[in-house]
Amino acid sequence: MTIAVNRTGVPGIQLPGTPLPATEPVASPKSVPDGTVRFLTIGGLELEAGGHLPDVTLAYETWGTLNSDGSNAVLIQHALTGSTHVTRGESEEEGWWEQLVGPAAPVDTDKFFVVSINILGGCYGSTGPSTAAPDGRPWGSRFPLVTLRDTTAAEARLADALGIGSWYAVLGGSLGGARALEWAVSHPARVQRCGVISIGARSTAEQIAFAQAQTLAIRQDVNFNGGDYYGGPGPEAGLALARRIAHITYRSAAELDTRFSRDAQHGESPLQGVSLGDRGRYQVESYLDHQGSKLVKRFDANSYIAITEALMSHDVCRGRGPLQVALSSTTAEFFVAAVDTDRLYFPAQSHELAQALPGDVPVHVIEAPIGHDGFLTEIGQLSEELRRSFFP
Amino acid sequence: MTIAVNRTGVPGIQLPGTPLPATEPVASPKSVPDGTVRFLTIGGLELEAGGHLPDVTLAYETWGTLNSDGSNAVLIQHALTGSTHVTRGESEEEGWWEQLVGPAAPVDTDKFFVVSINILGGCYGSTGPSTAAPDGRPWGSRFPLVTLRDTTAAEARLADALGIGSWYAVLGGSLGGARALEWAVSHPARVQRCGVISIGARSTAEQIAFAQAQTLAIRQDVNFNGGDYYGGPGPEAGLALARRIAHITYRSAAELDTRFSRDAQHGESPLQGVSLGDRGRYQVESYLDHQGSKLVKRFDANSYIAITEALMSHDVCRGRGPLQVALSSTTAEFFVAAVDTDRLYFPAQSHELAQALPGDVPVHVIEAPIGHDGFLTEIGQLSEELRRSFFP
Repeated sequence: MTIAVNRTGVPGIQLPGTPLPATEPVASPKSVPDGTVRFLTIGGLELEAGGHLPDVTLAYETWGTLNSDGSNAVLIQHALTGSTHVTRGESEEEGWWEQLVGPAAPVDTDKFFVVSINILGGCYGSTGPSTAAPDGRPWGSRFPLVTLRDTTAAEARLADALGIGSWYAVLGGSLGGARALEWAVSHPARVQRCGVISIGARSTAEQIAFAQAQTLAIRQDVNFNGGDYYGGPGPEAGLALARRIAHITYRSAAELDTRFSRDAQHGESPLQGVSLGDRGRYQVESYLDHQGSKLVKRFDANSYIAITEALMSHDVCRGRGPLQVALSSTTAEFFVAAVDTDRLYFPAQSHELAQALPGDVPVHVIEAPIGHDGFLTEIGQLSEELRRSFFP
Repeated sequence: MTIAVNRTGVPGIQLPGTPLPATEPVASPKSVPDGTVRFLTIGGLELEAGGHLPDVTLAYETWGTLNSDGSNAVLIQHALTGSTHVTRGESEEEGWWEQLVGPAAPVDTDKFFVVSINILGGCYGSTGPSTAAPDGRPWGSRFPLVTLRDTTAAEARLADALGIGSWYAVLGGSLGGARALEWAVSHPARVQRCGVISIGARSTAEQIAFAQAQTLAIRQDVNFNGGDYYGGPGPEAGLALARRIAHITYRSAAELDTRFSRDAQHGESPLQGVSLGDRGRYQVESYLDHQGSKLVKRFDANSYIAITEALMSHDVCRGRGPLQVALSSTTAEFFVAAVDTDRLYFPAQSHELAQALPGDVPVHVIEAPIGHDGFLTEIGQLSEELRRSFFP
């Protein structure tokens, strides 16, 4: 194992066709500024679904300093298209959970050593479909099916390398919450506190169904080429469509209707057009077009598929018995929360999880009209409860 | 105008590339058996969005006999992918609303003259993208944008031709409900009773958003060719994906999870596969694959787009003022109903409609875990209320 650092020090997507950043061994991870992507090679992984990945690299960022006894490490897990950049560091580039993590935030980076790991299969630096296989070509269609148990196993090796025997806390929302929960169940002795926000104990039939539609949108793109599109045009239209579908489910019907109603996009007429294909757009269409275009610029379509498949695999019960039995081995304190208007990861699933966990676990509620995305935009609503429960 | 009849007498989809069935003038529509598709040419139509359709044909079916004073005509409007075949006739082919329409059903075909019209733009016999334009080639990409006001205007001409000055009732669910409502608002003097089931007064931002995703799924199909795919392979994968997306929204999360949970499709292993693309399916994926495949066999992708666009246009307020003002001209008695678990056309939208209608209009509730599709599968729950309200 070597601990390595991106030469540029700039966090960034592995764009299709781009090889992994050149790495070099460093004496200590602390030689890299906070909030900067670094890389660790953790060796080969045998995967739950039967595949094998040799030479896995994980990208991660850290903030703060690990205590000499390793007692102040907090793992923050990102969601489906998230990166390791939870909060800003030296670069001042904004992070995605700054209400929760940073100096003087509930997860105070002046007190805690915060770690965030790009999920295996991702495109923010960890080994994924766009990175080079042993033959030097991108994995592409050959990238294996990876489950959340595989990603957790990979992350456990990174924790070993950082000298973290047991996390003070592991926290995440959405897919990040599933990753946190899987950590607590897979490694009960290594997770003292676990925050599972806006996700339940398993991906449901409906969540699998929406995920299937998204992966098909990409796979049916004219440029997908079975996943081997690197070096040519990528399946951008398919990825943008996947994002549109997903984004609808991340918001609430009420939020979309309050913002956009049936309004026409500025300068366009949805009811003017000589043929079906040339009318102007409704504002909500333009908004979703924009969401799709934004993602295409920063995300690899194969990684979208790989991580979506990992999320479909989310099921803490698999091979562990009924829910209460599967959770009985956990020794962590739990913090469970849901957005009241979430129509993808319904609050009822958070209640199901909380009730099955050992002890008396309440469900904290983010009240926000936005829907699922409240776990990002309204996480500050949980600050007080999180301080009281986990971070006094 | 001529009243014409399909030579075969068999209702059927206009498959891509198939010309309109040969037609012949008949002396009276009653020479055709009940529940058989017949055709009427209604002349040219100037469209709300600016296009023009010459020589429009509408396909329709009827059951029962029109009174000499034309007082017993009931129009039943089909939903997005529905056909004119509401209930069986001589052919015994099952219809899609038999709990509601038929001999001794609430809409008793022994008492009422029931009419069902294939929506303009459709593929069950009416003029649509797959039918021949004046140059003999299918309309394809040239088919114009059609709104629900256009389809209503076309249907009014058919009512004229049948000698129906005023409908005893117009009823429909989902898109069919929007069509019924538009009739009552566009032609208040011609609609005595109006049943609007499982839809509100306008398509909301979220409904537009889901519709956009579906039309894009088709448009991005490698075989779409801008809509001019007739004579070659059609955009089947895209249409099947559109149907998958739609079908998720037609069901409730609870229904999907109760039926399928995380089960593997028989003989397949969702967590076995050497690469991402070759794993087995979850049962819910197989189910949605099946829904997609079924639709591809019976529906034209361009018609799916055209009718979806018409549904996106649904807004009784357009050019008519605020909702209450827009509805103030209606003189019909209304019957408004919703499925309690509908997550696409939320019951709240039915309440909004009912409250804005003149008079005191209650919202009847279908209680069913299934979601939106309850308007089809559970319509029998409304039989008693419909008899009391409309069909004593």
